[in-house]
Amino acid sequence: MLDLVALGEPLVQFNAVTEGPLRYVTYFEKHSAGSEANVCVAVSKLGLRSGLITRLGNDEFGFFIYEWLRGQGVDVSRIRFDPERPTGIYFVQRSYPVPGVSTVLYYRKGSAASALSPSDLDEGYIADSRVFHTTSITMAISDSAREAVVKGIEIAHRRNVMVSFDVNIRRLLWPSIEDAVKAVEGVLRNVNVLFLDENEAELLLGTKDPQVVFREVEARFGISRVILKMGIKGSVARWDGETVNSKAFQVPVKDPIGAGDAYAGVFLASVLKGLPPSRAIVRASAAAAMVVMVRGDEENLPREQDLEVFLRNYGLSDVELR
Amino acid sequence: MLDLVALGEPLVQFNAVTEGPLRYVTYFEKHSAGSEANVCVAVSKLGLRSGLITRLGNDEFGFFIYEWLRGQGVDVSRIRFDPERPTGIYFVQRSYPVPGVSTVLYYRKGSAASALSPSDLDEGYIADSRVFHTTSITMAISDSAREAVVKGIEIAHRRNVMVSFDVNIRRLLWPSIEDAVKAVEGVLRNVNVLFLDENEAELLLGTKDPQVVFREVEARFGISRVILKMGIKGSVARWDGETVNSKAFQVPVKDPIGAGDAYAGVFLASVLKGLPPSRAIVRASAAAAMVVMVRGDEENLPREQDLEVFLRNYGLSDVELR
Repeated sequence: MLDLVALGEPLVQFNAVTEGPLRYVTYFEKHSAGSEANVCVAVSKLGLRSGLITRLGNDEFGFFIYEWLRGQGVDVSRIRFDPERPTGIYFVQRSYPVPGVSTVLYYRKGSAASALSPSDLDEGYIADSRVFHTTSITMAISDSAREAVVKGIEIAHRRNVMVSFDVNIRRLLWPSIEDAVKAVEGVLRNVNVLFLDENEAELLLGTKDPQVVFREVEARFGISRVILKMGIKGSVARWDGETVNSKAFQVPVKDPIGAGDAYAGVFLASVLKGLPPSRAIVRASAAAAMVVMVRGDEENLPREQDLEVFLRNYGLSDVELR
Repeated sequence: MLDLVALGEPLVQFNAVTEGPLRYVTYFEKHSAGSEANVCVAVSKLGLRSGLITRLGNDEFGFFIYEWLRGQGVDVSRIRFDPERPTGIYFVQRSYPVPGVSTVLYYRKGSAASALSPSDLDEGYIADSRVFHTTSITMAISDSAREAVVKGIEIAHRRNVMVSFDVNIRRLLWPSIEDAVKAVEGVLRNVNVLFLDENEAELLLGTKDPQVVFREVEARFGISRVILKMGIKGSVARWDGETVNSKAFQVPVKDPIGAGDAYAGVFLASVLKGLPPSRAIVRASAAAAMVVMVRGDEENLPREQDLEVFLRNYGLSDVELR
């Protein structure tokens, strides 16, 4: 039995060691990344059991991700190696032209994970977990991967597994923004926990006002657990009728990619551990701040003791929060 | 008027900073590479004028290659940027499992250069050059690129431009070795200068005996200028009835990729400069040795003064060769 099972594409991230346009960067640092994989590692680092359903290329980069995830304690028993297609990769350009903002260059078209399909889903594996998590990124990589997402959510819903969905619209991956919105709307009826940011709220609901967002999401899709991320302004969540919020922790930003995954993973792990949403949201905000301090998405994901030290530094230790 | 016009795909090379399986390599170093681009740079560094016909992605990696080639003095006026497709890239794994041998992992499927087609060929540009150079790598990347190679060779042949062809069979890029052989055989009738190694001779002609290779290539394809590369054993060339040879220079090998391109580029540049084949082959061998001493294919390509210093160190200075 796993606490969280995720479905999505892990990628090798090549992060620019120096800032500025990639054409002038000489050295690139290799990391294991990918939204759902990041969430698995976040959950595993907090002592819970996670597993990732995916496909990797039968190549050195696939072996790297497989061994990395296994090393982080993620269950890799449902990872398949594709003999034909390569492992997806991407490059990160940091702080150009906007300071603190990263942009990405994908080489994931035709990747192993783009061949994900409903056949990769083991119903027992999903049914025997507490949370099934995925994102619209996986819906964007191919038609068959989108079908896998739809089917995975459907299985989890039918088997009474909590369905967590991070909207995570990546414009580079969709033919048009309308396609993205349509795909997301198509699955929300079976979602129990929804993560989205202000831009995504605007796209999906035409508003970024938290109270309107919560009301609309509940009215239109029946979701009573919604987390709205507002960047520098912090985040606010509606959780079974209760509204909680957290500031965003101010830290030196090396690379903001991965913040949302750290947030989702730590939020989910915290509620799975029985913590109230008021604490989950603060812990999630702290984790998001921690990962943007380094290149790579997963290395700075906190263990419990690191999270405690981080929060204590801000006068928000567990003791005070209790 | 250019001395050499080449047709082919430049790629960004990410070379492992440390040796061993790529899964354990953390840092990668960016270089501009690609067989025909390497030849252009080799020719340009020796003071002649070269130009590359190709397509690059309209992205940071495309800009990098464009600016790099322009910086090396290569004419980039026939490079087109593709708004849809990315610049091709590849990774180099060094010294695993065989010491001194590198292996590559390509991300070039669907690259900008794979959209090369006969429409990229400016007949006047080719006709106004002294040598047209390409390889079977470019024939392997797509049907349209193969058509461009066939057409480019046909134009050069018809306009009395010397056609140079480096067999350069890359097994990873062909559906089968038979496809590669068939494609190469299809263009050899219009080739004037042929570079090949022992494996390629065996594949194309069923022999690696130099005299038989020369005889067969002349008999079957009418090519009287053939250079056979024999790795550690050196190389031997037949040039208009004269046979010349050179040892391979023993140097510390960091990454052997690019040696063949350095060889072809310096051989061609040398004969274009009016040097006899007996000197061209020694200079080409020296250049091949020089580029394997560093990561990257183009950085150690010699200027005239560097070549002179290298050869003098081996007791083979220009003075003694004359």
